[in-house]
Amino acid sequence: MIRSGLLLDYITSLFVGIGCSYDDARVIAEVLVEAELRGITAHGVRRVANYSMLANLGRINVAPDVRVVYQTPTTATVDGDNCFGPVVAKRAMALAIEKARTTGTGWVAVRGSNHFGVGVYYSKMALENDMVGIVLSNSSPLVAPVNSTSKMLGTNPISVAIPALRYPPLIYDFATAPITRSKLEETAKQGRTIPKGLVQDMMGEGSVDPSTISRGGAILPLGGGEAHGGHKGFCIGSLVDIFSSLFSGANFGPFVPPEVAYLPLSTSQQARGVGHFFGAIRVDAFRPAQEFKASVDTWIETFSNATGKEGTRGVQMAGEGERRLQERSMKLGIRLSAGQIKDINRVAKSLGKELLPYTQDEEEGE
Amino acid sequence: MIRSGLLLDYITSLFVGIGCSYDDARVIAEVLVEAELRGITAHGVRRVANYSMLANLGRINVAPDVRVVYQTPTTATVDGDNCFGPVVAKRAMALAIEKARTTGTGWVAVRGSNHFGVGVYYSKMALENDMVGIVLSNSSPLVAPVNSTSKMLGTNPISVAIPALRYPPLIYDFATAPITRSKLEETAKQGRTIPKGLVQDMMGEGSVDPSTISRGGAILPLGGGEAHGGHKGFCIGSLVDIFSSLFSGANFGPFVPPEVAYLPLSTSQQARGVGHFFGAIRVDAFRPAQEFKASVDTWIETFSNATGKEGTRGVQMAGEGERRLQERSMKLGIRLSAGQIKDINRVAKSLGKELLPYTQDEEEGE
Repeated sequence: MIRSGLLLDYITSLFVGIGCSYDDARVIAEVLVEAELRGITAHGVRRVANYSMLANLGRINVAPDVRVVYQTPTTATVDGDNCFGPVVAKRAMALAIEKARTTGTGWVAVRGSNHFGVGVYYSKMALENDMVGIVLSNSSPLVAPVNSTSKMLGTNPISVAIPALRYPPLIYDFATAPITRSKLEETAKQGRTIPKGLVQDMMGEGSVDPSTISRGGAILPLGGGEAHGGHKGFCIGSLVDIFSSLFSGANFGPFVPPEVAYLPLSTSQQARGVGHFFGAIRVDAFRPAQEFKASVDTWIETFSNATGKEGTRGVQMAGEGERRLQERSMKLGIRLSAGQIKDINRVAKSLGKELLPYTQDEEEGE
Repeated sequence: MIRSGLLLDYITSLFVGIGCSYDDARVIAEVLVEAELRGITAHGVRRVANYSMLANLGRINVAPDVRVVYQTPTTATVDGDNCFGPVVAKRAMALAIEKARTTGTGWVAVRGSNHFGVGVYYSKMALENDMVGIVLSNSSPLVAPVNSTSKMLGTNPISVAIPALRYPPLIYDFATAPITRSKLEETAKQGRTIPKGLVQDMMGEGSVDPSTISRGGAILPLGGGEAHGGHKGFCIGSLVDIFSSLFSGANFGPFVPPEVAYLPLSTSQQARGVGHFFGAIRVDAFRPAQEFKASVDTWIETFSNATGKEGTRGVQMAGEGERRLQERSMKLGIRLSAGQIKDINRVAKSLGKELLPYTQDEEEGE
């Protein structure tokens, strides 16, 4: 186990070692640790090794000039100068919130970014201001449109945070594809198959083999084929892509640079980096904040009381499981796998830093 | 066949007969005819009979006092006073566009509305202003959350219109559920079954019977069950519901009043009518409009060139099929079914109006 504060400081020091300013390193560490706390390990500290490799390859700029390239009272376009995603993403969301404070809503488009970790880190920033936070990002292509065999869209996440009054906020954070790359990789490693209707092979035929995407296959849009509404899933993924790229001038769809170092940088980039889109909406721009938040409470109560299907855990509120996990991990500490620790220590050694101060607890054995 | 202009005038006269002002009647007719032109017959002129019944039952206010109840420079809340949906929806979108003209973006939440027809009518309004138009609406409950047997969400549509430069605009218009009520009713009438993974029976077990929703069953969220990402579809449907209702104070989820007269009005309404949410974004609030629109062109070209799966029609651009149909119907006229004509004429007779001036063409026989 490791205390989250200790992990945060340690990861910060690694990114300082990689060449980031202390402030930038801190933000990156915060976003990765936030993911770890919430149990979203695919975007957690296991990214340290990959982030470090991308920096070493010169594919990420560790000393970027992040700047607002265009703005109006309610909107802005920010260029991340090919920085680590969290660096520009946090700044962009803060700018959206600042604009919303003055004008009711704020909207910021980002280009020249990279993998930004978990969207929830940014959408949550809106909550303390009695705002709804909205976060969209595109990501490197894995999803084929209905009736196509080309990978054209990423798993393009959406995060939306909505403040409540007496209950914890509603926190949506989901990929717009039915399964993610990391889930496929995990399943492949375990030698298991996946259900039908999630991926197709290079000919566009349905497959249950999670490794088919590395052999010309693709993930299907949310819904699957056309008979199951996959064209609607493709619409949703497309909208996230368009909002994330075309307002700012980031790469779209098939041109979005990969977030992992083992995939080569495409030679066909036609714009700047990965793109995101951030929104902040003051709830009292529409009705008194207390009224809005009380109605969110009623929504939560109503949906929590929906009849559960027998033998299931019933209806879960958005972000509820992750919030409980986060509270628990804040109190008890974070458990990392042997593989995660090894990867982090490899980075530490290469930077001449001390190893991760991790303590095996009883359940983990030695 | 009937010319669309003639149909428009005729439907307008019926709504004047029902008690609407000429201007309101015209908007309602425009929205219904727009749906018919685009081949979205479920929201087309077959709604006339149902709209008329709702008015006769006093469930819709034909002489509403539609008013802005709250506003800031970028936002507004509009109360439709229980009007026909198109009446408040068009006004709300126009207000969003007006606000965006001044401040870059405009956002309008609506309560006290009813079925607003096709969202595309409103999202398209943004295009001539070089804006992106966004339209969300909730609708009466048909969809059960993952792991639940309660109908909690409507098929909650999203429409987004995005201007291009040399190509027709991208026009998204889709329900966020995998299948709609009208499609289920149509399939049931034909005595056919539907594929697995779209609906469940009252116990929450998968069903291929399209009529199961009238016996306690429900539509599944986009994606289906949890293994296929149905929880993500539930997130999307929930977000459309929340944006459509909680900003304005409209009914949410299970309380949204039914859009058809044969379903009784729920006694448990806790707020006002059906809710919508409209957005307009000046594309030049982020980058020069020509640049934005040129990048939409590149997006369209890139996605149109995605490799098609053998034996399919390949990748279709959003709204392309409907646009072609609309152009064709504008030129050649609109064909209505015998049932549609009969229903409209029944309304006409009840109002003492002349019958629909419809001409059977050769293909339709006598």
